[in-house]
Amino acid sequence: MDDRIERQMAFTLEIDKEKNVYRQTHLTGHGRNENDAEHAWHMAIMAYLFREYSNEPVDIARVMLMCLIHDIVEIDAGDTYAYDPALKATQKEREEKAKERIFSILPEDQKNELTALFEEFEARETADAKFARAMDNFQPILLNNENGGNDWREHGVDAKSVYARQIKTKDGSEKLYEITEKLIDKGIENGALKV
Amino acid sequence: MDDRIERQMAFTLEIDKEKNVYRQTHLTGHGRNENDAEHAWHMAIMAYLFREYSNEPVDIARVMLMCLIHDIVEIDAGDTYAYDPALKATQKEREEKAKERIFSILPEDQKNELTALFEEFEARETADAKFARAMDNFQPILLNNENGGNDWREHGVDAKSVYARQIKTKDGSEKLYEITEKLIDKGIENGALKV
Repeated sequence: MDDRIERQMAFTLEIDKEKNVYRQTHLTGHGRNENDAEHAWHMAIMAYLFREYSNEPVDIARVMLMCLIHDIVEIDAGDTYAYDPALKATQKEREEKAKERIFSILPEDQKNELTALFEEFEARETADAKFARAMDNFQPILLNNENGGNDWREHGVDAKSVYARQIKTKDGSEKLYEITEKLIDKGIENGALKV
Repeated sequence: MDDRIERQMAFTLEIDKEKNVYRQTHLTGHGRNENDAEHAWHMAIMAYLFREYSNEPVDIARVMLMCLIHDIVEIDAGDTYAYDPALKATQKEREEKAKERIFSILPEDQKNELTALFEEFEARETADAKFARAMDNFQPILLNNENGGNDWREHGVDAKSVYARQIKTKDGSEKLYEITEKLIDKGIENGALKV
C-alpha cells in the first residue's frame, strides 16, 4: 500500500475513538449519555433538513462535513460541557494540541483542508460556520427538551448561561432561534432551568 | 410553529432511535458493539476522505447524505447481519415498511427526496450509490481487521460469503477492493475466516 492511503486508513481508525467520547446530553426516552460521533451524525442530517432556515445561503456539503468533524479534537481533549466555566477556560489549549496531533495523521493536503474547516467552524464567521454552529446548539437542546430538561436540571444550569450560549444560534438561523427561545421558556416554566 | 418545521423536528427526534440499533461490528480496541448512527457517521467521513478512489466522479454531498441516512429504516427493521441468510431473506419486506413509516414523518417534498436517495443507495446503480455502498462494506471490514477478525470468528463466517459480499466494493472503487482482498487474505491466514 502507498503512504497516502495508509495515512488515510490510519486516520479512519483513529477517529473510531470518537465513539467513546461521551457528552452530557442524554438520548431521547431518558436514554444513556450520547457520544460525539452520534451527535455529529445527527447534526449533519439536521443541517441538510433545516438548510432552508439558514439566514444566508450555505454550501451544504461543507456544512455537513464541518458538523461531522467538529468534535474529532475531543478524542484527546475530552468533551467540555457548555455550562462548565472551569473546563471552558482550558478548552482552547487542549483542543489546539489535539488538532495538531490527530489531523497530522492524514496526508498533508487533507490535514490542511480538515484543519482549516475545523478552524472555520470554531471562528464562526462564515455563513457555513454560523449555520453549522447553530446545529451544534440546536441538536442537544432538542434532545434535552424531549427529556423534560433533565440535562440542565442535573447540572443546576441557569437560564442566563443558556441564553448567552444559545443567542449565537441567531447568527446562523433566526427561525431556529425563535424555536430555541420557546424551548428555554419551557425549561424555565417546568423548573429545569434556574432563573 | 408551522406544520412544516414541526414535521422536521419530529423526524429529527425519531431518528435519534438509530443510536440504539446495534450492529455485529465492534469498535476498535476490542470495544463494544457499534451502533448504526456511529457507523453512518464514520462512512460519511470516509466517503469524503476516500473520494479520490471512486471509479467514477461522484457528487460528494449526495454520497455523504446517502451514507448518513442509509440505515434509518433499521429503527424499525433492526440490523440485519450481512452473513445471516435467514435474516437476509426477510430484510427487504421489513425495510420497506420502515421506510414508509419513518420518512412519512417529514414534509412531503423531503419524504420524497430522502426516500429516493435511500432507494438509489439500495439499487446500487448510480456512481454515487456504488461508492456509498463501497463505504458500507469497507468501514466494518476495517474495524474488524483491526480487531483481528473477531467479528467473523464469532459468527463462524466463511471466506466465500465474505467475497460474495465484498466483491461489490469493486463497482465503487477498484482501489478499495484491492485493499479489501488483502484484509480477507489476512482473515484466512489468521484463522478468523473459515475456508
